Amino acid sequence: MKICRALRASTAFAAILALPLSAARADEGMWTFDSFPAAKMRADYGWAPDQVWLDKVRAAAVRLTGGCSASFVSDAGLILTNHHCVATCIEQNSTADANILKTGFTARTREEEKKCAGQQAELVTSIRDVSEQVKQAIGTQAGEAAIKARSAILASLESSGCPDTARTRCQVVSLYGGGQYKLYTYRKFSDVRLVWAPEAQAAQFGGDPDNFNFPRYSMDASFLRAYEDGKAVATPNHLEWSARAPIDGEATFVVGNPGSTQRLLTSEQLAFQRELALPITLTIFSELRGRLIAAMDSSPEKAREGAETLGGIENSLKVYIGRVKALGDPAFTGRLAAAEADLKRRSAGNAAIGNPWADIAGAVRAYRDFYVADRFSLPSGELFNYAVTLVRAADERAKPNAERLPGYSDSALPLVEKRLLDAKPIHPWLDQLMMEWSLSKAREYLGADDPQTRLMLGMESPEGLAERLVSGTRLADPSVRKALWEGGAAAIAASTDPMIVYARSIDANDRDLQKRYDELVDAPLTSAQAKLADARFAAFGDTIYPDATFTLRISYGRVQGWTERGQKVPTRTALGGTFDRATGAEPFDLPAAFVKHQARIDKKAAYNFVTTNDIIGGNSGSPVIDRSGKVIGAAFDGNIHSLGGNYGYDATLNRTVVVSTDAIQEALEKIYPAPHLVAELRR
Amino acid sequence: MKICRALRASTAFAAILALPLSAARADEGMWTFDSFPAAKMRADYGWAPDQVWLDKVRAAAVRLTGGCSASFVSDAGLILTNHHCVATCIEQNSTADANILKTGFTARTREEEKKCAGQQAELVTSIRDVSEQVKQAIGTQAGEAAIKARSAILASLESSGCPDTARTRCQVVSLYGGGQYKLYTYRKFSDVRLVWAPEAQAAQFGGDPDNFNFPRYSMDASFLRAYEDGKAVATPNHLEWSARAPIDGEATFVVGNPGSTQRLLTSEQLAFQRELALPITLTIFSELRGRLIAAMDSSPEKAREGAETLGGIENSLKVYIGRVKALGDPAFTGRLAAAEADLKRRSAGNAAIGNPWADIAGAVRAYRDFYVADRFSLPSGELFNYAVTLVRAADERAKPNAERLPGYSDSALPLVEKRLLDAKPIHPWLDQLMMEWSLSKAREYLGADDPQTRLMLGMESPEGLAERLVSGTRLADPSVRKALWEGGAAAIAASTDPMIVYARSIDANDRDLQKRYDELVDAPLTSAQAKLADARFAAFGDTIYPDATFTLRISYGRVQGWTERGQKVPTRTALGGTFDRATGAEPFDLPAAFVKHQARIDKKAAYNFVTTNDIIGGNSGSPVIDRSGKVIGAAFDGNIHSLGGNYGYDATLNRTVVVSTDAIQEALEKIYPAPHLVAELRR
Repeated sequence: MKICRALRASTAFAAILALPLSAARADEGMWTFDSFPAAKMRADYGWAPDQVWLDKVRAAAVRLTGGCSASFVSDAGLILTNHHCVATCIEQNSTADANILKTGFTARTREEEKKCAGQQAELVTSIRDVSEQVKQAIGTQAGEAAIKARSAILASLESSGCPDTARTRCQVVSLYGGGQYKLYTYRKFSDVRLVWAPEAQAAQFGGDPDNFNFPRYSMDASFLRAYEDGKAVATPNHLEWSARAPIDGEATFVVGNPGSTQRLLTSEQLAFQRELALPITLTIFSELRGRLIAAMDSSPEKAREGAETLGGIENSLKVYIGRVKALGDPAFTGRLAAAEADLKRRSAGNAAIGNPWADIAGAVRAYRDFYVADRFSLPSGELFNYAVTLVRAADERAKPNAERLPGYSDSALPLVEKRLLDAKPIHPWLDQLMMEWSLSKAREYLGADDPQTRLMLGMESPEGLAERLVSGTRLADPSVRKALWEGGAAAIAASTDPMIVYARSIDANDRDLQKRYDELVDAPLTSAQAKLADARFAAFGDTIYPDATFTLRISYGRVQGWTERGQKVPTRTALGGTFDRATGAEPFDLPAAFVKHQARIDKKAAYNFVTTNDIIGGNSGSPVIDRSGKVIGAAFDGNIHSLGGNYGYDATLNRTVVVSTDAIQEALEKIYPAPHLVAELRR
Repeated sequence: MKICRALRASTAFAAILALPLSAARADEGMWTFDSFPAAKMRADYGWAPDQVWLDKVRAAAVRLTGGCSASFVSDAGLILTNHHCVATCIEQNSTADANILKTGFTARTREEEKKCAGQQAELVTSIRDVSEQVKQAIGTQAGEAAIKARSAILASLESSGCPDTARTRCQVVSLYGGGQYKLYTYRKFSDVRLVWAPEAQAAQFGGDPDNFNFPRYSMDASFLRAYEDGKAVATPNHLEWSARAPIDGEATFVVGNPGSTQRLLTSEQLAFQRELALPITLTIFSELRGRLIAAMDSSPEKAREGAETLGGIENSLKVYIGRVKALGDPAFTGRLAAAEADLKRRSAGNAAIGNPWADIAGAVRAYRDFYVADRFSLPSGELFNYAVTLVRAADERAKPNAERLPGYSDSALPLVEKRLLDAKPIHPWLDQLMMEWSLSKAREYLGADDPQTRLMLGMESPEGLAERLVSGTRLADPSVRKALWEGGAAAIAASTDPMIVYARSIDANDRDLQKRYDELVDAPLTSAQAKLADARFAAFGDTIYPDATFTLRISYGRVQGWTERGQKVPTRTALGGTFDRATGAEPFDLPAAFVKHQARIDKKAAYNFVTTNDIIGGNSGSPVIDRSGKVIGAAFDGNIHSLGGNYGYDATLNRTVVVSTDAIQEALEKIYPAPHLVAELRR
């Protein structure tokens, strides 16, 4: 359930348009730590955590830059997260001879722990309200000027907040779509290593068919360790490990980083999603899925090398299929329409609020005109990403911090650099496939005669161009990237690497589209959304929470099943159920270690369970914490109904799916034995 | 622009739900020959054809069972149609050594003309109104009983109408969704042979990117010949060939068989399409497209063998993308909603009409409950199709004609038998790909635990099951199919062929779904639609036309461009424009013969042109006829706006795309020389 980052324009749009529905009901809510609804929880549960409790769990909550959540679970930097959150790392450390994605992995010593390229662990150390500074800097400006002023003040706040860029990271986050701005400071650990992972088949048992479904039998857990200066980081503020089964009805907390929700799209915005953005997404990603499935079928190497990418695509697709389903359900959209009508009624006559709905409709109309161009302005592929990052960084780094594109501010650059320069395996066939696909989709949606198509393809075919660029570039070599990074604008201008030459040739067009987006879409939306936020605060006071922004949140709920077409869905599964569900045929074939250790395994150990916690993609790997503050599982999925959670939470149906510590402990003791980890968790 | 027959449930639904919008405006209308709107055309054009003219062109109009239209253009059974209508035949007659799909084909003698497996040419000889008989047979019955009564009377009418099943074919067609029933009698020619085809690259120049676009440079034309008893059929009633350029503004007629339109879906039906049916279609066919593209990339044989299937999928996908776009355009759907509101107003107070909209809404709601099961009840693949046809025919043929499933009535069986027994190449890899894909999609949409999934997969994976069935079956051999066909129920029951065994195992579930559809969807819809038809006749008199039903229609219009985003799109292209548009990269690379004969080609010859005629998929290959009754081109496509034509015609934007006789003549004389055909056309 990772955040899909593949859809630049649409996710950008999504993140920015997002606002919550109305006053939160039942267990709804992804709350910030500074406004936990203790009174409300106490009313419902007869108990709620106090500030000491909240501070304690917050201090152990980890964000992973790959788009996941996690937690420290020992005093020596040991991190619990999901297997699917580290699958890229496992795949990168696999070879044809030692396919640890397939076999699983246990580092017997610290020395055997394997570096995860591009991965970084982050811990929030402070949150400061900077709304006034940001709003003052924007002042009465509008259009592109407003966006530029905002970028400048954010860059400045982030830069002055974190002078030590090696150990800290600052991010200003816009909450309530522009209603509040908060400066998050993170202690960061950019050396993260793989400690333990089960077989992929244990983590992914049931594969795509079971994804977002329940009952479920998945060992979707892994351990990482944070390092600094070559040594494991000391983490005295860790969560205590409690290897036990969940109890029906007990209170549970999920502490993690939900990626993005869109819970107060106006009807115009929903129409944009349903009519334009989502159909394109379904269509092009389904084709990519098909291309990849068939390409992987042609050799065992490709099957191995493409597995992680395919898993990500299938996961994202299911998310989008779930969203389409939600927006195609008249009952669901009826509730959203009713909430919109309600807020309009409550705000009628409030002159300060005006008509933000009309302003938003205007911005959406404007975006409809160039959405396709914006969406298809850059091809896909790791190598192309390197190239466009290098080209852009060379330009941006030469500018003062306040004038750069947001992704290239001083506070953002260290992670950009790390991702660019970290060594990682490149699979040219996969890059070529991604480029062919994305270029052919650009031509298809723009049309062969469109100027942007001509700019992107010239006289070449998508296949010919992709082949020429991928086979000709040397960017797979980290030292080549390093030389271009360090050489700056002069090195980029002088480069004859075909991928760099190509990225140079299409960069200006993409920048123009960004400008147009800032001017015609982002600026009016930000202003209108701030007014909508005002309307909501006026109507509902502090009973609301901001939409998800991949920042730390806490959700409360309880261990509870649900009713599906009249049938009660159980609260949890047992480890032994794996053997009953196995068919022998992929993806329902048993993991080798399960077969091998079948006799020893405690079949009754709790395996996966569901809770009413309100989560979304980005929460993957979040610790599930009991009333005593101990970790009893790792959230790894939602049920199929939770996919509509992007637009609204339904307490009767939305569920979080968790792998229990009971099962992980059983795995550590008997299936993928790691006695030293068992000891470390007990310490 | 062929009819997509791949989507059983949804196209069945589509065809049955269809009714026209309101009184036809401008050049809108796919008119039946017995109600050509001569007065209206005369008012707009100052001229209209008389009965003699209409009878003459009707007598030369050919329907091809593959889903296309065509016309006789010589006295010796020569048939003009599109290249894409015969691509399957060309591919079937291609080998690795003689890839005539790539090289083009000219039969220098009659003996060299190549049989097209499964192809049949049909000529309407009479149309009789049988509405009273059908309505009387249904009487006051409802639900499944009504559908059974209708099937029985149709089977009986068709059977008694065409005792000579070798030379004639009878079909009762429901017009106005049940408002009228007409018995069409066809003279059929089941031996059709390939005479002439250009290179695929000439026909498909611009490929998928240019499909449904204009300006266009496509030689999408071919010639077939009808045979009987081993001899070319004499066709004195043929169209006269006029090799000339079109004149801007001149009147044009398209005479052919539009496949299906849905121009009076109620708002509930449109919602069903937009929210449920179309997103699934886009998603699963895009994945299939991707699987096929990548599989074809793995070898030149697969590239050749899969080309025709891929072309069909891409064409269908574009159609569906166009439909999604139309239904996502608020202006377009606003017009449809206004027309519905208008008809409701006009019908208010007419007690005989009642509230068919509510009845239709009920049927749609009922279908939502089992649409996914219905849609995914049978896997795809030629070999599976053979198997399920054999299994079903064995059951059905043992029943009296009136009690059979509609597809197995006496009148339908000869074509079923021909398609089953005609020899044609099977590509096992392609069948396996289709089965894997369709079975995995069934599991995905139904869920792994669904009883239908368990029925269809058992303990196997989609990949394992497909591999076992495709590698184990002997149904690729026509003699095996023949033995099973002739052996009837006993042979089927005794067969151990794995594909037959599998088809037997899932047949009953599909029959149950069909029953449920008849009872809960088809019966209430048919009854409600008949009332809607009454409402329309009451409101608009005879100024309306029935939705398309793949039966012969005539459309009038004129040679005319349109305006796209403020730019005038020209009326036609010239043959020489091909050279300007060529990039050298696929699919914009020049056909070899164009390069070879470049110096001789008349660059100014008219190539493709657009007209305002109202057509849709199934019209491909239709003759485009001038005022004098001569053929001046073959319709082969619509522009991108014509895809919304499924739901409504917009005279300012919808255009038919035609390959001119001027260009075909040039090809016959200079590019793919066939002097004997030139002589035959002049005769």
